[in-house]
Amino acid sequence: MKVVALAGGVGGARLAQGLAQCGVDLTVIVNTGDDFNHLGLRVCPDLDTVTYTLAGIANREQGWGLAGETTAAMEQLRQLGAEDWFLLGDRDLALQIYRTHRLGHGVPLSTITAEVAQRLSVSARILPMSDDAVATIVQTPEGELPFQDWFVRRRADVAVSGFRFAGIEAARPAPGVIEALTRADAIILCPSNPYVSLDPILSVPGLRAAIPEVPVIAVSPIIGGQAVKGPAARLMADLGAEVSPLGIGRHFAGVLTGMVIDQIDADLAPRLGLPVRVTRTLMRSDQDRKALASACLRLASGGTWTS
Amino acid sequence: MKVVALAGGVGGARLAQGLAQCGVDLTVIVNTGDDFNHLGLRVCPDLDTVTYTLAGIANREQGWGLAGETTAAMEQLRQLGAEDWFLLGDRDLALQIYRTHRLGHGVPLSTITAEVAQRLSVSARILPMSDDAVATIVQTPEGELPFQDWFVRRRADVAVSGFRFAGIEAARPAPGVIEALTRADAIILCPSNPYVSLDPILSVPGLRAAIPEVPVIAVSPIIGGQAVKGPAARLMADLGAEVSPLGIGRHFAGVLTGMVIDQIDADLAPRLGLPVRVTRTLMRSDQDRKALASACLRLASGGTWTS
Repeated sequence: MKVVALAGGVGGARLAQGLAQCGVDLTVIVNTGDDFNHLGLRVCPDLDTVTYTLAGIANREQGWGLAGETTAAMEQLRQLGAEDWFLLGDRDLALQIYRTHRLGHGVPLSTITAEVAQRLSVSARILPMSDDAVATIVQTPEGELPFQDWFVRRRADVAVSGFRFAGIEAARPAPGVIEALTRADAIILCPSNPYVSLDPILSVPGLRAAIPEVPVIAVSPIIGGQAVKGPAARLMADLGAEVSPLGIGRHFAGVLTGMVIDQIDADLAPRLGLPVRVTRTLMRSDQDRKALASACLRLASGGTWTS
Repeated sequence: MKVVALAGGVGGARLAQGLAQCGVDLTVIVNTGDDFNHLGLRVCPDLDTVTYTLAGIANREQGWGLAGETTAAMEQLRQLGAEDWFLLGDRDLALQIYRTHRLGHGVPLSTITAEVAQRLSVSARILPMSDDAVATIVQTPEGELPFQDWFVRRRADVAVSGFRFAGIEAARPAPGVIEALTRADAIILCPSNPYVSLDPILSVPGLRAAIPEVPVIAVSPIIGGQAVKGPAARLMADLGAEVSPLGIGRHFAGVLTGMVIDQIDADLAPRLGLPVRVTRTLMRSDQDRKALASACLRLASGGTWTS
């Protein structure tokens, strides 16, 4: 079974790991709208979270970064007076240096991502949504802020009125993205932020149109009115959406053919107007990740999937 | 007493630290011919060795790098397949990132060097010989090699027939260099490599001509026919020079007014044709460094210096 997962950071990475454990032929198309230049380095938070998680070397507690990571370089950068609001561990910094160096030699992000995945023994295909730079810009009453400035540096301290994805009109899907979608037996929208993780991917010109007539299943990132991680619930509220699987379903209306929602939201299932699977969606252990992936695959296969 | 020291890496840094301990008004003009781009970062080995040593945070055993340094990033870079022949510790890497980032914003190397020195509580002035890039190129029967390629990557495995300093014709002395020389009461040529540390400095257009009529004292980097550290003895032999203080004296003829040589070479003193001070020149402890600096200052001051 050929499965394409669209993923942002932590939640997306965890479900992708579950899908990989299910033994499907997996391609993960990852948001790059959060990517930014920091201290002269090209930082790709979602790509790295997906890669580290699939490689089994992610920091399980915080979801991003590496397990057992040290921060000697960042401490020295702080002593040198460099900006220190975006924490990069020593081994994580190595990847940023490697990527920046390769990009500087004209190597596309998709090639570098594949090299890194191979070096870290990841067997799933990880594709950036585009090799062209796209920057998610947060629109606020104070003006526009680059995403990481709003989310990390400012700690999301200002209300959001909308988003735009700078560069998206000229962005081409990365090599392999259209092919993977075209050949997919099922497409999974991971429990990632709808506005700043999945929307950028679906906004890459030509990408949405390449989604074939196959099951497209979203896992709600909202559980009982809360996001497990990150600003999804907060953003939905700021933007006047219903902070529930219903809001997620409406956001992706016309794309989805089914949804997986948490037990706690079971009473909403009839109102989604789509085939729904109700299960535990919180992914704490590897077993949780695999079980949730299995639920997605069963819904996508009309119940025929057995992992 | 205003003292200007011309310095390369380890030996130069150690004598500079001794001079700083003597309480003189110290400016260190540092070779940047060894600087190179590595993994997209601008690496300045001699500047960093001088800065770390004067800051009291250098690795005393190896002479370069930081004490108590970790290498997590380099190990990860190796795993990612990046070139790993030039070792940079985690905190050292932080400085390379900081410098590269600032250079990318158009900040001159001399400004960055001063910022770093201040952040690391160095009170002596550290000046790169030039803000313009100069690259020491090693000429060999196999062709030309950039210095670090020859010295570190190839481990100096090929004979040397000469050197050139690419970019030297267009290099301007860094801000402060000419002023420091003009005002100096004494100039010390540290026990650094004559060809690849001191020659690049003295080859910056206008620099040699700015040396005033004051004592110019060299400390021989050759002790008993050997270099304490680095390829100086090897290079002198390759190039047909006498591997002794006599070879050093001849190399800097016309510049020097005096030399400090090691006890082991005492019998050569009469043949140098210059005022000579014979002392222990091996710098193991801080006391050694200060004692050697004192010897230089006494020779420069005609014996009037007392530390």
